[in-house]
Amino acid sequence: MLTELSRREAALLRALTTRSGRKKSGCCRCEGLRAVRELLLCHPEKVLFVAVANKAENVLQCAPELLRSVPERLFNELSGTVTSQGVIAVAEIPPEKSGPVEGDFVLALDQLGDPGNFGTIARSLRAAGQKELWYTKGSIDPWGDKAIRSGMGVQFSLNMRRFDTLAGLAEAGKQHGIKKVFIADPHKGENCFTCRDLFDHSIIVIGGEPNGVMGAYPGAERVIIPMPGDYESINAAQAATVLIFESVRRKLN
Amino acid sequence: MLTELSRREAALLRALTTRSGRKKSGCCRCEGLRAVRELLLCHPEKVLFVAVANKAENVLQCAPELLRSVPERLFNELSGTVTSQGVIAVAEIPPEKSGPVEGDFVLALDQLGDPGNFGTIARSLRAAGQKELWYTKGSIDPWGDKAIRSGMGVQFSLNMRRFDTLAGLAEAGKQHGIKKVFIADPHKGENCFTCRDLFDHSIIVIGGEPNGVMGAYPGAERVIIPMPGDYESINAAQAATVLIFESVRRKLN
Repeated sequence: MLTELSRREAALLRALTTRSGRKKSGCCRCEGLRAVRELLLCHPEKVLFVAVANKAENVLQCAPELLRSVPERLFNELSGTVTSQGVIAVAEIPPEKSGPVEGDFVLALDQLGDPGNFGTIARSLRAAGQKELWYTKGSIDPWGDKAIRSGMGVQFSLNMRRFDTLAGLAEAGKQHGIKKVFIADPHKGENCFTCRDLFDHSIIVIGGEPNGVMGAYPGAERVIIPMPGDYESINAAQAATVLIFESVRRKLN
Repeated sequence: MLTELSRREAALLRALTTRSGRKKSGCCRCEGLRAVRELLLCHPEKVLFVAVANKAENVLQCAPELLRSVPERLFNELSGTVTSQGVIAVAEIPPEKSGPVEGDFVLALDQLGDPGNFGTIARSLRAAGQKELWYTKGSIDPWGDKAIRSGMGVQFSLNMRRFDTLAGLAEAGKQHGIKKVFIADPHKGENCFTCRDLFDHSIIVIGGEPNGVMGAYPGAERVIIPMPGDYESINAAQAATVLIFESVRRKLN
């Protein structure tokens, strides 16, 4: 018999849908099977408990003392999705990484406001084997409910670092040995498929839609994804994915 | 003074949110500024009328006799979005293209169920300057409200063709001079960055999540997007975008 979810735990699950609730408790919600699995893989020590609907009691490999059984109706009320997979974990938000930069380059998001795009970009970065995802104030909270669902929990396996401004972000990069800053620009810049040094200890900045990169950073170079279709632009997640997999192509070939 | 939206027109706008409503009338809804602009650019002759909220009366360049003024409250009720741009067009769905295949390759979607992914893929294809977007039964209706919003109306500028099965789709390709069929596979296949002939009068098939390509097609080759991060997979829209822009890279370099 699993322990039942307490009222206090249910209240915490509700509170964690807001930024203030996360700030107060230092915790976040992590919903969906793949997301919870990623969490248990990377940071099992951070997990407070995992709420499971009856239908999902046997789908997770997890220490039984972490599991909390939740009746279907209550679970549906607590879930952030219409068709839930029956699993929501509550975990402490890991402390922000401050050590050396890992991997070949840093992907930086400047005021990216859409949690779906954030999650998609995080997944692409993870799939490409890179680690550093930096972002500026004005971007969505990566530990928000939707961002974690959309990123399927890859937040827990990336080094995410937050900065007030793009200038501060670039400055921190310099101190970590970053050589160049590139800004993805929909209108002008060097062809991203031929630009040298694009992934050589660099920062690549992607701006939130619809304004692109807002912060100025002197000395940054512009790169463009060529679009023969003469179309305005693709969205931020698509642009980031094209650049991220161009790094994979160069590395493997 | 603009003509006011009639009750009949309001009823049509409501009916077009369902597949049966679209089938009955042969029309679709096209919401959002960029989507309506794409429609007016590609198929102005298909537009029946454009409903505009008061706030948006001056944002469109369009024959005034097509415009219908809608009070804010009614517009919000008719809109499919929470933060609308105040513009919804109703247009006849263009007849399916049956002529020669245009561009370098065909992108085919096999049972892709997510309208957001469909729209994203359509935009990437349009940005890359390709034309042919084919799909099998079981995929979402590309003329649905969400698919058009997410695709920002690029449906109107692509050649979209529907087939009952993947085998039927490949057969039609053969009759149009298609040389090879490639299936994007998350687990095995030739490296998409080195695979020759990938964009030489080919069909590239992307499967809907989470099952990948369901239909079998004898003689198809498998291609894989390498993922050094050892991560399960990226989503269908990301995978399609990586492949589409690999075609741009090869063409330009």
